[in-house]
Amino acid sequence: MRPAGRAVHALRPLTMEVGYTRHAEGSVLIRAGDTHVLCNASILEKVPPFLKGKGQGWVTAEYGMLPRSTHTRSDREAARGKQSGRTQEIQRLIGRSLRAVFDLSALGERSLQLDCDVLQADGGTRCASITGAWVAAAIAVQGLMERGVLSSNPILDQVAAVSVGLVNGTAVLDLDYEEDAGCGADMNIVMTGAGQFVEVQGTAEGQTFDRAQLNTLLQLAEGGITQLLALQKQALGQ
Amino acid sequence: MRPAGRAVHALRPLTMEVGYTRHAEGSVLIRAGDTHVLCNASILEKVPPFLKGKGQGWVTAEYGMLPRSTHTRSDREAARGKQSGRTQEIQRLIGRSLRAVFDLSALGERSLQLDCDVLQADGGTRCASITGAWVAAAIAVQGLMERGVLSSNPILDQVAAVSVGLVNGTAVLDLDYEEDAGCGADMNIVMTGAGQFVEVQGTAEGQTFDRAQLNTLLQLAEGGITQLLALQKQALGQ
Amino acid sequence: MRPAGRAVHALRPLTMEVGYTRHAEGSVLIRAGDTHVLCNASILEKVPPFLKGKGQGWVTAEYGMLPRSTHTRSDREAARGKQSGRTQEIQRLIGRSLRAVFDLSALGERSLQLDCDVLQADGGTRCASITGAWVAAAIAVQGLMERGVLSSNPILDQVAAVSVGLVNGTAVLDLDYEEDAGCGADMNIVMTGAGQFVEVQGTAEGQTFDRAQLNTLLQLAEGGITQLLALQKQALGQ
Amino acid sequence: MRPAGRAVHALRPLTMEVGYTRHAEGSVLIRAGDTHVLCNASILEKVPPFLKGKGQGWVTAEYGMLPRSTHTRSDREAARGKQSGRTQEIQRLIGRSLRAVFDLSALGERSLQLDCDVLQADGGTRCASITGAWVAAAIAVQGLMERGVLSSNPILDQVAAVSVGLVNGTAVLDLDYEEDAGCGADMNIVMTGAGQFVEVQGTAEGQTFDRAQLNTLLQLAEGGITQLLALQKQALGQ
Amino acid sequence: MRPAGRAVHALRPLTMEVGYTRHAEGSVLIRAGDTHVLCNASILEKVPPFLKGKGQGWVTAEYGMLPRSTHTRSDREAARGKQSGRTQEIQRLIGRSLRAVFDLSALGERSLQLDCDVLQADGGTRCASITGAWVAAAIAVQGLMERGVLSSNPILDQVAAVSVGLVNGTAVLDLDYEEDAGCGADMNIVMTGAGQFVEVQGTAEGQTFDRAQLNTLLQLAEGGITQLLALQKQALGQ
Amino acid sequence: MRPAGRAVHALRPLTMEVGYTRHAEGSVLIRAGDTHVLCNASILEKVPPFLKGKGQGWVTAEYGMLPRSTHTRSDREAARGKQSGRTQEIQRLIGRSLRAVFDLSALGERSLQLDCDVLQADGGTRCASITGAWVAAAIAVQGLMERGVLSSNPILDQVAAVSVGLVNGTAVLDLDYEEDAGCGADMNIVMTGAGQFVEVQGTAEGQTFDRAQLNTLLQLAEGGITQLLALQKQALGQ
Repeated sequence: MRPAGRAVHALRPLTMEVGYTRHAEGSVLIRAGDTHVLCNASILEKVPPFLKGKGQGWVTAEYGMLPRSTHTRSDREAARGKQSGRTQEIQRLIGRSLRAVFDLSALGERSLQLDCDVLQADGGTRCASITGAWVAAAIAVQGLMERGVLSSNPILDQVAAVSVGLVNGTAVLDLDYEEDAGCGADMNIVMTGAGQFVEVQGTAEGQTFDRAQLNTLLQLAEGGITQLLALQKQALGQ
Repeated sequence: MRPAGRAVHALRPLTMEVGYTRHAEGSVLIRAGDTHVLCNASILEKVPPFLKGKGQGWVTAEYGMLPRSTHTRSDREAARGKQSGRTQEIQRLIGRSLRAVFDLSALGERSLQLDCDVLQADGGTRCASITGAWVAAAIAVQGLMERGVLSSNPILDQVAAVSVGLVNGTAVLDLDYEEDAGCGADMNIVMTGAGQFVEVQGTAEGQTFDRAQLNTLLQLAEGGITQLLALQKQALGQ
Repeated sequence: MRPAGRAVHALRPLTMEVGYTRHAEGSVLIRAGDTHVLCNASILEKVPPFLKGKGQGWVTAEYGMLPRSTHTRSDREAARGKQSGRTQEIQRLIGRSLRAVFDLSALGERSLQLDCDVLQADGGTRCASITGAWVAAAIAVQGLMERGVLSSNPILDQVAAVSVGLVNGTAVLDLDYEEDAGCGADMNIVMTGAGQFVEVQGTAEGQTFDRAQLNTLLQLAEGGITQLLALQKQALGQ
Repeated sequence: MRPAGRAVHALRPLTMEVGYTRHAEGSVLIRAGDTHVLCNASILEKVPPFLKGKGQGWVTAEYGMLPRSTHTRSDREAARGKQSGRTQEIQRLIGRSLRAVFDLSALGERSLQLDCDVLQADGGTRCASITGAWVAAAIAVQGLMERGVLSSNPILDQVAAVSVGLVNGTAVLDLDYEEDAGCGADMNIVMTGAGQFVEVQGTAEGQTFDRAQLNTLLQLAEGGITQLLALQKQALGQ
Repeated sequence: MRPAGRAVHALRPLTMEVGYTRHAEGSVLIRAGDTHVLCNASILEKVPPFLKGKGQGWVTAEYGMLPRSTHTRSDREAARGKQSGRTQEIQRLIGRSLRAVFDLSALGERSLQLDCDVLQADGGTRCASITGAWVAAAIAVQGLMERGVLSSNPILDQVAAVSVGLVNGTAVLDLDYEEDAGCGADMNIVMTGAGQFVEVQGTAEGQTFDRAQLNTLLQLAEGGITQLLALQKQALGQ
Repeated sequence: MRPAGRAVHALRPLTMEVGYTRHAEGSVLIRAGDTHVLCNASILEKVPPFLKGKGQGWVTAEYGMLPRSTHTRSDREAARGKQSGRTQEIQRLIGRSLRAVFDLSALGERSLQLDCDVLQADGGTRCASITGAWVAAAIAVQGLMERGVLSSNPILDQVAAVSVGLVNGTAVLDLDYEEDAGCGADMNIVMTGAGQFVEVQGTAEGQTFDRAQLNTLLQLAEGGITQLLALQKQALGQ
């Protein structure tokens, strides 16, 4: 049995509160069970040096966990003076995932900066970040279009992410922290609204897996992504 | 006239939501108008090196602003690789303010670590941090007492903070960002439940001030602190 | 047509020169086409702090590229003062991959430190690092067993890695730099001697992919891994 | 009784040696008892990025302690790789204090950089830094005027600083290290030649204070500042 | 007796393999006994800020040791986040030595960047770096001339380096690690093809030395340099 | 003609003021012309990790320049967050030079830490640092002996340093900044009281030199060192 009697193919209760903070061009507090991530999208009228004068924009992300978002307190990265390898890996993943559904030329020479900050962690923070960041990005882009800054929508499709894993040999969807800590292998799957893969990251943690197990996990993920895509639309009032 | 027609001696609407996150031993989301700070208190069963074996505890604080808590996006300190001078100044102030009302011997050889993270900023973040951190600390200490870890309460008194300043020559209480940016002189006042001063930090920003103005500002602050102390008690259900 | 007329399912010419340097407990220069990585394994009689006194060992890796291993010179990370996110991501991957085939208890309280330094880069450096590092590790462990330090072999299986990708819609094995730069989607696959997956990391770079394409890529990777496993045995003289 | 039989309202013997080093545009070695601070003022023909093209100048400060200025040796900040929170707090205070008496437009697009380096410390280093830095600044500005670079004096008034504190319940002026270490509450007061407050920084260290005590301390500080302002004029030969 | 029965005035067997890596404009693997250093020369079409617009070029060097080039593993400087004092000292020496034989005006506004990376260390790595770097530089410059980028050769002379030292009171040439560790005094001598000194760096390590000993060491070095100059020409096929 | 009509073999006027600061166990302000260096010696009752439990002591040095010790202001290394290569090179040289005349076993398990801080620079700061540091060290050691902490003197001999160089082809002693900037080759020579060499560091800066020139420079240095050794004794009142 999973915690709270959840079915193997069930997502945790998920809500997305848009407009959670007021300064960001797009702001969403995504809550996936006890994992709460604040996703803020900022429009910056500049691009990184390598894109200057190329007539296209950029989408990038930063990720952080509040020190006491975790069960026991973690060090504050700003105080330690550097971001961990895990943090950098996650923020690179978020940025790549979002760029996969953006037409950077249609964005013009400006940047969309996504800040995903974990207020409370209970597993699956990188997937919640991607799912929430897309909604925040959509709101920010909508603002640019309403103000007439952009004439065509640079967002080509939705993108969302979910985790799957083998817990005691059983494939389950959307692992919480306890399941994640005890699981043999876990995957983070990022997919588009059209059902295409953007990222497939599977890692054996103590237990390697074969092709059949991989297929089961992918199947489970596809089911979860379908639900997330619907929840994203709902959050945007579509 | 002040923004939203506020009286010169009126605080902004202030709420403190206890238990905002679930892992911290004490967690409070303080909202002072549009300034929102998440204050988490952690109990760590260790003390800094300079206190090892001395039979007393420690209380300290860290402070941070989410990159898009501000009107325009600020750099992430973890990404830049260091905390700004302003951040360090503020977290040192929070720590000193809390320690002023603690009996560190009664705490035993453990640390109370306060994390004040600004989710949304509109002026007065350091004062909100102190006021909220005291409530988070009180909850964490209460937990230690209920579990029988501590037999006597190491918290000797309340502590709260408020800003005052001269805006166009008029003394006003609890400045928001717009008032703060335009004010000639501002002060942050930290006081105890007994009405004693813990910190008095006045700074001329463009306009120096005389003894009479200083007295007016202190008077105004005392009124504000009185209200904050009552709100703290209320948040704790007392 | 692929560069040098290579077949889609063909590895680049691959050699592993054991004993390339003399101080390391295990040393292998792996050359996969024009990608040359020096893999050195060091035995350290200590473990990281979190493992002290737990009666088990640790396997970890560090990765670096010489500044002029690349087509145009890259900054030296030691001079810049930090490792890039990409470097950290790769060295974490190498470490996890090796640990997946180690019985850390059988290693005793010591560390196996793998250093993978790219002397010349032409795509696929992380995969070559994993494949070569396993051979370097096997030599180092063999030394411990010959000297009677270890009585049972802590290495449970082989591990090797290969890249696959979609170039102009065609699935190809073991991409060189030019193919990698132009490919729509690429994957790095890490597998054991028993044919189990350790890591599956697929990324859409400009072009998302569907389930059928994913299956084709996995199939191709399995073929490549089989050849790599045989070459590892051969390098060890088995 | 205070050390050396000093009266509660007496400053320590204070001298300011102008022209202590020869390269700086203004150079003063201030000695307040055993606290010796070298204050050098440099004129730089550039402004920080945020002021470029705005037709005004900037005044800023840096502060440091030589490792063996203190009773026991402190780490060298350059070797540790960062400035402490205390250092940053102090140099920000010095900069703000000086700017309070400057007409930055009259300075033109150039910077006045103040370096306050403590050669020997015995309490009150930040106050001595401010008092000495103003004299160094005045000399540097005088040079600009004599050379005809500036036509009107950008310095609007004097500024000086002194510490006061409660030692065993008694309010005393200009604390040395021993008094500072043992005091219950201390304040650093920065005032202009016109008797206006620039900074009022009071901190309870172990003992909170009330309004009456605050008033006594401010009174004492005003007396000290009056003497310092006269000594500054004397150092400038006025 | 020296290790391997070497005569006091004999160099270790020395080879220089040109074209060791393919991307660098000049690439040489120099092997002096068991000391192996990869010297890569890169042509960069830019100069440091202090030379911009001055119509001249720059020659500079960076140096590094692979973590397991040494008998016991050394920390990776990129992971520690800074280069050691020793590393910086050596790379400054290599840069100065090369610049001594360059006509920087004849190089045009471009930089020659030398990367000396020690693959295996057995004493004398800085001398091998200089000797090998000159050959790599000569190849890179030859390329510029063949492509018609440069019309006159900016390299005015050869430069090579060798170590000498007093081992148990005897002056010996080209010390290996064991001799270096046990020697009383050692010197690194850098000389030009014309027999002029570029650098003379002698250090007493446990045993000071007199003028006569200094003369003997210089004599020995001159003999070694003569052989190195011939080997450099041979490596270039002259 | 040299500046101020100085003879080629003449030192600049040199004074050493002992007891310049009061907290250090040994404190000397050395003034060599317009080069002023404060040399403080601290006795620390601890040794670096690599010497723990070995029954011997350590002597080490740190060096720094105040930002405005130079003709134009240099960046503060503490603010930049790292020491330059030049700074590290110099402090390593000072440490080695002092250790050359110390019996580290006779010092016991404690460290002598030398801090050489340049208050004003006009060339030759590293040589002045060594010459002054030895006097500061001698005073600190004398204190240990007077207090009975040490029974035998760990200082075996004097050590002093001077620069020499070729200015327009003429060999001159003790170069000031202007001469140093314009010289073709310069050397820093460190010698003991017994006339032995400790360090010989010659560098061609724009002009290489031959054996005869080297001999002339060494001769000149020996004359300068003889004078410095006498001045050291005088400063100690011997």
